[in-house]
Amino acid sequence: MKNAAIFGASGYTGAEAVRLLLSHPNIRIKALSANRHADEDYGDVFANFAGQDLPRTQAIDDIDLLDIDVVFSCLPHSTGQAAIAKALGHVDTVIDVSADFRLSDPALFEQVYGAPHSQPQFLKDRVYGLTEFARDSLLGARLVACPGCFPTCALLALLPGVQAGAFTQSTLIIDAKTGVTGAGRKATLGLHFSEVSDGAHAYAIGNHRHAPEMEQELSRYGYASPISFTPHLVPMNRGMIATCYVELSGDTSVNQLRALYADRYTNDPFVHVLAEGDIPQTRHVRGSNQARIAVCADRVLGRAIIISVIDNLTKGSSGQAIQNYNLTQGWDETLGLETTALFP
Amino acid sequence: MKNAAIFGASGYTGAEAVRLLLSHPNIRIKALSANRHADEDYGDVFANFAGQDLPRTQAIDDIDLLDIDVVFSCLPHSTGQAAIAKALGHVDTVIDVSADFRLSDPALFEQVYGAPHSQPQFLKDRVYGLTEFARDSLLGARLVACPGCFPTCALLALLPGVQAGAFTQSTLIIDAKTGVTGAGRKATLGLHFSEVSDGAHAYAIGNHRHAPEMEQELSRYGYASPISFTPHLVPMNRGMIATCYVELSGDTSVNQLRALYADRYTNDPFVHVLAEGDIPQTRHVRGSNQARIAVCADRVLGRAIIISVIDNLTKGSSGQAIQNYNLTQGWDETLGLETTALFP
Amino acid sequence: MKNAAIFGASGYTGAEAVRLLLSHPNIRIKALSANRHADEDYGDVFANFAGQDLPRTQAIDDIDLLDIDVVFSCLPHSTGQAAIAKALGHVDTVIDVSADFRLSDPALFEQVYGAPHSQPQFLKDRVYGLTEFARDSLLGARLVACPGCFPTCALLALLPGVQAGAFTQSTLIIDAKTGVTGAGRKATLGLHFSEVSDGAHAYAIGNHRHAPEMEQELSRYGYASPISFTPHLVPMNRGMIATCYVELSGDTSVNQLRALYADRYTNDPFVHVLAEGDIPQTRHVRGSNQARIAVCADRVLGRAIIISVIDNLTKGSSGQAIQNYNLTQGWDETLGLETTALFP
Amino acid sequence: MKNAAIFGASGYTGAEAVRLLLSHPNIRIKALSANRHADEDYGDVFANFAGQDLPRTQAIDDIDLLDIDVVFSCLPHSTGQAAIAKALGHVDTVIDVSADFRLSDPALFEQVYGAPHSQPQFLKDRVYGLTEFARDSLLGARLVACPGCFPTCALLALLPGVQAGAFTQSTLIIDAKTGVTGAGRKATLGLHFSEVSDGAHAYAIGNHRHAPEMEQELSRYGYASPISFTPHLVPMNRGMIATCYVELSGDTSVNQLRALYADRYTNDPFVHVLAEGDIPQTRHVRGSNQARIAVCADRVLGRAIIISVIDNLTKGSSGQAIQNYNLTQGWDETLGLETTALFP
Repeated sequence: MKNAAIFGASGYTGAEAVRLLLSHPNIRIKALSANRHADEDYGDVFANFAGQDLPRTQAIDDIDLLDIDVVFSCLPHSTGQAAIAKALGHVDTVIDVSADFRLSDPALFEQVYGAPHSQPQFLKDRVYGLTEFARDSLLGARLVACPGCFPTCALLALLPGVQAGAFTQSTLIIDAKTGVTGAGRKATLGLHFSEVSDGAHAYAIGNHRHAPEMEQELSRYGYASPISFTPHLVPMNRGMIATCYVELSGDTSVNQLRALYADRYTNDPFVHVLAEGDIPQTRHVRGSNQARIAVCADRVLGRAIIISVIDNLTKGSSGQAIQNYNLTQGWDETLGLETTALFP
Repeated sequence: MKNAAIFGASGYTGAEAVRLLLSHPNIRIKALSANRHADEDYGDVFANFAGQDLPRTQAIDDIDLLDIDVVFSCLPHSTGQAAIAKALGHVDTVIDVSADFRLSDPALFEQVYGAPHSQPQFLKDRVYGLTEFARDSLLGARLVACPGCFPTCALLALLPGVQAGAFTQSTLIIDAKTGVTGAGRKATLGLHFSEVSDGAHAYAIGNHRHAPEMEQELSRYGYASPISFTPHLVPMNRGMIATCYVELSGDTSVNQLRALYADRYTNDPFVHVLAEGDIPQTRHVRGSNQARIAVCADRVLGRAIIISVIDNLTKGSSGQAIQNYNLTQGWDETLGLETTALFP
Repeated sequence: MKNAAIFGASGYTGAEAVRLLLSHPNIRIKALSANRHADEDYGDVFANFAGQDLPRTQAIDDIDLLDIDVVFSCLPHSTGQAAIAKALGHVDTVIDVSADFRLSDPALFEQVYGAPHSQPQFLKDRVYGLTEFARDSLLGARLVACPGCFPTCALLALLPGVQAGAFTQSTLIIDAKTGVTGAGRKATLGLHFSEVSDGAHAYAIGNHRHAPEMEQELSRYGYASPISFTPHLVPMNRGMIATCYVELSGDTSVNQLRALYADRYTNDPFVHVLAEGDIPQTRHVRGSNQARIAVCADRVLGRAIIISVIDNLTKGSSGQAIQNYNLTQGWDETLGLETTALFP
Repeated sequence: MKNAAIFGASGYTGAEAVRLLLSHPNIRIKALSANRHADEDYGDVFANFAGQDLPRTQAIDDIDLLDIDVVFSCLPHSTGQAAIAKALGHVDTVIDVSADFRLSDPALFEQVYGAPHSQPQFLKDRVYGLTEFARDSLLGARLVACPGCFPTCALLALLPGVQAGAFTQSTLIIDAKTGVTGAGRKATLGLHFSEVSDGAHAYAIGNHRHAPEMEQELSRYGYASPISFTPHLVPMNRGMIATCYVELSGDTSVNQLRALYADRYTNDPFVHVLAEGDIPQTRHVRGSNQARIAVCADRVLGRAIIISVIDNLTKGSSGQAIQNYNLTQGWDETLGLETTALFP
């Protein structure tokens, strides 16, 4: 049994880590940090955990790291760098769900997140944990930066084609839709029920922070151009769609592309490439670690539409974090993640 | 005062026509057809009208057309062609909200809608009623084919740029999101609350019937290529977004493009081009006839993202129908349509 | 034309007043107060008003009251007493939507709202504006205290029976359900979309502030006992249900009770007593000033269930406020309120 | 390992049984019946199960009962009586989730459900499976009739007080709120997203079929009067609230009542009595087998309000079914039911 601490347990990604870890056979939750809610019963922070046998919340500095094997850090970006650096001096593994270690270039981090990185020495060796493309690096990794929810969703839809050289450069467009939990558990007017329900809208057009992250990864696999990326907020709790518009290079057909994807993910327990004609829905992966991908013909010859759906809190965040930790330990990656999606 | 009949008053677009016409100063509702609900109090068909002074529903053939000046036909596509042809023999004006007279080419109609058109003789002279681009033809028009909701939303976002030659060919991508009323008032499993709420999904990828309609109109204004078009179903009652990805031709800047749009729509009471940085939300046009358009810079140089939102039942359907009828009569186009959007 | 100022125009009830007044034939909106949003375009405070011809927001003290005939005060309770007192020195009429002048006993006000009333001199002569029971007092009234949303909904369901002595004492139970706008436009965690959507809960059990208000009014009409009242929060924007459980006194039958209600409200344009077997839904009064009431037999002999639905922002707040103002002026009470409910 | 068949696997309660059984350590799903969807991949019936290792659906008569240990029957009421009778000839245990065996009096069944019971011989010995009140009878039981969702929710809130004689007769009122899945997976207009979302309403006032069932059980424990019961439909997928209004007998205080409840349920793993001041929310039990109960003081002296929330598909249906089966086998009742609620 490994002992886990969750940093930032008062947010939605923290709570999702707790929910999933409670059914993990090899992990025991030993500490929950929540600076603004320190020393509370966790069931008072999130009522769905009332009655569960969980430690009380602590200030992050009060956690006894000697007792901890793994930290799942679910802090808001830019707030956990020092705590993670400190933790790396005591625990075997840190799985960071925030944006802090995703960008390998500290200058780019500063440009995108508006403040210098305080621990750039860890950026070179951290593993970027898009699990299905990081398996070789995960075993034994000490610091894993989990991808953002949009990058997870879009990269799963794009990387097999990019790797195969199936797409032309400079043509990629990603139109994404996300549920409201993606914005976190903040008391802001923009997240008020009546300001968000029964309607939809785009946001952060042309300047969302996940775009440089996607470009970083796409370029590692051979797509070197900037991308169009537009997220939209949809009145649902969980769920994310990336609708990716690609131009096919050479004479790749859509059926060949679908076969390539099916083949690429054939051994991946959480990624399902749908049969021709099937279209994934976010509600069918609600609460599960699955990604579902459809490769579809466009009306425009020579183009394809690739659609990927995930639960932004699970595969898009804390589920993938656990999947990554499982692999750092050489365990079956599905441990703690076998749950069927909750539908309806 | 003109006397109006609404064909197909038991559907959502029919009910929207009734709602709006009730506050129209120059129109009196004289007949409501509802074949499956014939001879009912309209307040039993739609409870929000209970207590209103409205005629009982009738079978369409029982309506006395001698008494009618204008028919608003809100029948499902392919079911109203004969009734409209018959009505044109008696009434001054037919405003058709269905798809039946939108495509000018009967062969294309048959291909897209799966059955031959029974009244192709009317296709040549009907007016395609995207109001802001049809004013010159509307005065005195006898048959107006109102655009589909997606075409209305997307064409308003695209035509000014297309007319100005601002976009390159073969690059247009339209990613759309719609509320559930767009699918009509059908008792199907796919529209069951629990199958639609708290989630989102794409549908009709690459083969939605509104794509040929958009291509028909785009080509009239100078964009001759097929388009990528992907609609998504979002858990909201009303509302539609068209997120349009365009490549700018020549050296048009995004700011120039925005200015061009603002100029183009400056005299249009229902189309608002937002200032730089503002992003429209569907909930802010709920129940109103407005379209709101944002012209945004993309991350990719030389590209722009144009976002348009409407209420699919109002500007996307029965609101535009009334706007069109107002113009056939030479009236102020805002009559009956002055309502502020209902928010929240 | 009368000139209106809206105090507290940055909240939902303020915005609802603006929305309705925009279509009022006899009222011109001259001033909008919004202390925290002073000197803004109102379309930036509520985007659904973008493009409307409305005054910019002002700090409340900057409004020139000499120019104003009527103030609609939509301020949070306890914050508007002084401003209303000042306004009464300049304008003809103040219609207060807040709780500040509803309780006629200043000691009870202090007990319920936790602070002494600063202007108790106005409590004696203010009119409690449950319109259908206040007509005789409204003509010429200078200060009208509009009932709370729950009192409006429940009292309409109860007062005809109470007046007729149809209910036994000490048996009244009111179980209410409200949409989220009832809680106001506050950025709090409890109103975050994901904390409110896809679920329901009771709140303020046994101690909601509207209970003493209901008791005050019930006792004026002959029901002198305390009441059971439990509100529940439901994931909808607008709408309210009061499900009222009553014990019938003497040998009143449910059918007689229903007939009594139908008779009582027969001349009330906004109150509809449904036929036996019909059940009202909140969505069918969305955005309208209607109340719909069903008088139903219970399983338990000698009991009845009376159900009332309203839109909490319209009949439950700013709609009733305008209805009241219309009557202070001797106008038709429906002016500005003829809108059909927006469904779906 | 026990082999299970699920009858009626194409409905929501059937799917919930499958979801939960997939994580049950002692049960293997061997057969899924779905007459209208026979011979389909279960992932085509419910997409959230795509990729799971599950048997294809069968017509109910094609299931080889020799292979089955336990049947979970999730058929609509009145449709499964013969199939259950047949199954009882072959399998050890039948857990019926429908209404068919809940009422012990066949005459009452016929009156309530409108058709005679075809297998009344089983009514006498079936166990009514409100688990927390049926433990003594469950071990070895062959036919368990699981309570309806409303009876489960309300009886858990009422029976401890009834057993203790804490409530006066003839005063009980139950006001309930349910999510839409409670109405089943039927393609009807009344369940259309736009007819159900963003609003609420009561239904089946005074005549809901679960009322006689509640009265049957209440009378077994000492409350012999008819009850007032009014359900309301709320726009949420899962979740149910029973708000119960009781008059306290003798000099029982609310605090004593709460202590009595806490004591009664102290050993029940799925029933949580909340501390004074806490109020349960349905979203915090979403997808879990928990019931949460608050015992609250009313404004009216001598009365209390007891609020119970469950997930109607889990504790209100298939979760309780599995809990019951666990106890028929002498297993820990939490097997397969340990999941934390999914929030948000």
